[in-house]
Amino acid sequence: MPRVVAVLRPDGPEVVEPAQPVITVDDLGLTRGDGCFDSGLVTDDGDGHVVRGLDDHLERLTRSAAALEITPPPREAWVSLVDAALAAWDTPGDASLKLVLTRGREWDPDAGPTAWVVVSPRASGRPQRGEGGSDPVRAVTLTRGHPSDAFEDAPWLLGGAKTLSYVVNVAAQREAGRRGAEDVVFTSTDGYALDAPMAGLLVVRDGRWLSTPTGPTGILESLSVATILRAAAEDGQDSAFELVPVEHLYDADGVWLVASSRGPTPVGELDGRPLRVDPDLVARAARYAGF
Amino acid sequence: MPRVVAVLRPDGPEVVEPAQPVITVDDLGLTRGDGCFDSGLVTDDGDGHVVRGLDDHLERLTRSAAALEITPPPREAWVSLVDAALAAWDTPGDASLKLVLTRGREWDPDAGPTAWVVVSPRASGRPQRGEGGSDPVRAVTLTRGHPSDAFEDAPWLLGGAKTLSYVVNVAAQREAGRRGAEDVVFTSTDGYALDAPMAGLLVVRDGRWLSTPTGPTGILESLSVATILRAAAEDGQDSAFELVPVEHLYDADGVWLVASSRGPTPVGELDGRPLRVDPDLVARAARYAGF
Repeated sequence: MPRVVAVLRPDGPEVVEPAQPVITVDDLGLTRGDGCFDSGLVTDDGDGHVVRGLDDHLERLTRSAAALEITPPPREAWVSLVDAALAAWDTPGDASLKLVLTRGREWDPDAGPTAWVVVSPRASGRPQRGEGGSDPVRAVTLTRGHPSDAFEDAPWLLGGAKTLSYVVNVAAQREAGRRGAEDVVFTSTDGYALDAPMAGLLVVRDGRWLSTPTGPTGILESLSVATILRAAAEDGQDSAFELVPVEHLYDADGVWLVASSRGPTPVGELDGRPLRVDPDLVARAARYAGF
Repeated sequence: MPRVVAVLRPDGPEVVEPAQPVITVDDLGLTRGDGCFDSGLVTDDGDGHVVRGLDDHLERLTRSAAALEITPPPREAWVSLVDAALAAWDTPGDASLKLVLTRGREWDPDAGPTAWVVVSPRASGRPQRGEGGSDPVRAVTLTRGHPSDAFEDAPWLLGGAKTLSYVVNVAAQREAGRRGAEDVVFTSTDGYALDAPMAGLLVVRDGRWLSTPTGPTGILESLSVATILRAAAEDGQDSAFELVPVEHLYDADGVWLVASSRGPTPVGELDGRPLRVDPDLVARAARYAGF
């Protein structure tokens, strides 16, 4: 599978072989998960590869870095990294972009943060844009172990920061697999739906377009969810960020997991119970998301 | 500062320069904090460097790996790595050993897990063994955001696993610094003391030697705390793993943060309030810990 890796060196971007070791064992991103990342969609509309909403992704990455008190490279450095990676990317079709930043080397703090970008093909099996949305997935609810206001006044818990400390997210995905499902809806101990390990949550219920608020819940801001709710509002729909009780998922008009690189994916089954998947709503959610 | 890094290659251990990049950008330990580690003390009693309780550390690392469903290299491979690192370590005095294991490369799953060990000098300013214990530190209490039973029946939250996803631990240490303290006692939302970001918690109160139970609390098992409580019991003291309410810390006979590589460190001030530091108790805790 083709991939392009571009690493930020003191004198600018360097495209390296994906299998070339470029990280030392004292990198704090590695030893402490002390870093952040962001992911976006690279579109190919016949006129070369373009990162959709690159500035939004760079701004979110900057917010994640601020929560970690890491000073990120300037915007121009990221743009030069992305440009270098895309210049080396010659696979037709849409792709995924990942931007990664770590605190840098523990044993050489003067070296500053470590930064790189990766361009990869979109996950196989995902529909292309314009195909009317993804096939439904099965999901399970799993507790995140905290109440829905746990991150209020506790900035050290790093709510909302897209950090490299993702081990619980991948463990939850494995638990879903064990339960015969493909994905997870995290829940709070006080009974609300939160988000998914690698996606935001979208719920349509009684005609209202809803998603979990950021802030006290600790969930990551989803740029794609924000895009969808904005488009829904502009289309005359009632839309809001508000806590959705878990039991409201089972009789919703539709539930989606939403990520930049894959668009909105309908949940067709939750905890073994079938959820409504309305083709018109699925197509509309995909359209709102620009998919 | 001298350091030795030994990496596990397919054909055995290789000692590499600490500044040599040996990790690829797709290593899941780096991109997801998806790996685990363990730390121990290397003693130098004039007869060469020896890892104290290496088997206990390897067993705890194996338990962490099992929680992550990572198949670790066999014990002999770890022992050969440690031997290779210690053979290259020629700095007199005690040292720290870190063993690290990640799930390996995302883009080359057949390559298997990534494993390495690091030998470093003990943090400067720590007393040597036999000096009667460390100087007291100032600490603050910070919430961990979850109740004390959050990890019950939720193995995907990876309670008790010493994972590489440590970003909240280091963010909490920074918060302590902002508050004029050197360390943290994490607390549960229901009012109990848990542990410290990089150490276990020991409390002596009304003559009883206490520490937080593992399991539902999600805290890491502390080998040093276990050693101390065992030695206390053998010495005729009442000792137990039981939840300690936060307010019981302020009027305890003594509170310590405990880690293999630094021994028990008394907390002299918590949230700006002075704690009791009884020299006899401090010396006894150090002795129980073998320091």
